[in-house]
Amino acid sequence: VREIFEAELKQLGDDLEAMSRLVERAITDAGRALLDADLTLAQSVIASDREIDDLQRDLDDQCVRLLAQQAPVATDLRTVVSALRMSGNLERMGDLARHVAQLARGRYPGHALPPTVSDTFSRMNDAAVRVAHRATELLATRDLALATTIERDDDLLDILHEQTFAAMLSPDWLGSVQETVDVTLASRYYERFGDHAVHVARRITYLVTGDVPVELS
Amino acid sequence: VREIFEAELKQLGDDLEAMSRLVERAITDAGRALLDADLTLAQSVIASDREIDDLQRDLDDQCVRLLAQQAPVATDLRTVVSALRMSGNLERMGDLARHVAQLARGRYPGHALPPTVSDTFSRMNDAAVRVAHRATELLATRDLALATTIERDDDLLDILHEQTFAAMLSPDWLGSVQETVDVTLASRYYERFGDHAVHVARRITYLVTGDVPVELS
Repeated sequence: VREIFEAELKQLGDDLEAMSRLVERAITDAGRALLDADLTLAQSVIASDREIDDLQRDLDDQCVRLLAQQAPVATDLRTVVSALRMSGNLERMGDLARHVAQLARGRYPGHALPPTVSDTFSRMNDAAVRVAHRATELLATRDLALATTIERDDDLLDILHEQTFAAMLSPDWLGSVQETVDVTLASRYYERFGDHAVHVARRITYLVTGDVPVELS
Repeated sequence: VREIFEAELKQLGDDLEAMSRLVERAITDAGRALLDADLTLAQSVIASDREIDDLQRDLDDQCVRLLAQQAPVATDLRTVVSALRMSGNLERMGDLARHVAQLARGRYPGHALPPTVSDTFSRMNDAAVRVAHRATELLATRDLALATTIERDDDLLDILHEQTFAAMLSPDWLGSVQETVDVTLASRYYERFGDHAVHVARRITYLVTGDVPVELS
């Protein structure tokens, strides 16, 4: 029985990793769609979000089945409950990537972002892609050094988010109202993307160290 | 043992209801702070969000303890897992109310919203307050008619969200860049607030009917 259970726990981990890999692909493509006004990429991100949602549903069903059939305790229970939580974070990260892609699609063939902020968003997107990539690696390896780099990139995302707002509020800002709305939303999406990755990082840290983190909710 | 377990499940329900009541208070006050530029109310919402976060943490600990000690199955298991989920939604609703209050505080003694959209936001806030109030009632009574009204008010929030964007993009819009940013964010916060309430409504519907809803994640 223990062997079957171990295999099922491993499956949970593999599915989380697969979800995270899809999220990584989604934010990579969404960022390119946004920065290059690439409609094909935008549409593929929007269409693929369903895969992430389906994986979450499967994963959650699996967790509930495991809880019912195996009645796990201690570390095993923490693993299953954490999987339920992290699947929620990854699903939201997928939604946020989709929202970025929808902004790009909505302005096509134009660019959603005025050129003055494209450098900042390019950096935001790089940070978000790194964060997603490291979440995948962290789920696979549980190497906590990755959790630290995720926190650092989330801090960077917060700084870039503030820079974006500062740029809009400076007297030099020449963006249209539509651009102001889009930049506000896109910046918020990236900032939230980082927050969810941090939750994943803290969950894994908790699973590895057993220390309840400052802020996990 | 069953009696103790029943009491513990009841406690979970009571705690969710208490969380929802705090959220209801938070969005009521945040809306008033936003619409009336009331700094005292804004600050009280921001300070009180910690209470909601603490309740969530307690509730989650309780859920994990129940899973470990009682190894619930079937309906009981669904109840505990749903409580874990709903506490997450309620915690986010509290955060969103806090974000609304932070917008109000950030512009004080000015108004964050230009007068042209204050009517729309007044309606958004009314809908959000109803949604929160009905979520509390739904948690207390499990009367599914309330779930239906929550979905309806969420639809209304989506419509008002679109109206806000349409107002900003019309040639009549005279808002400053700061106002455009604030209105975009505030509208997004209300829209998300409704989404989370719908998740609570669908969870309860699922618990009562056993039918897996279309979209629960």
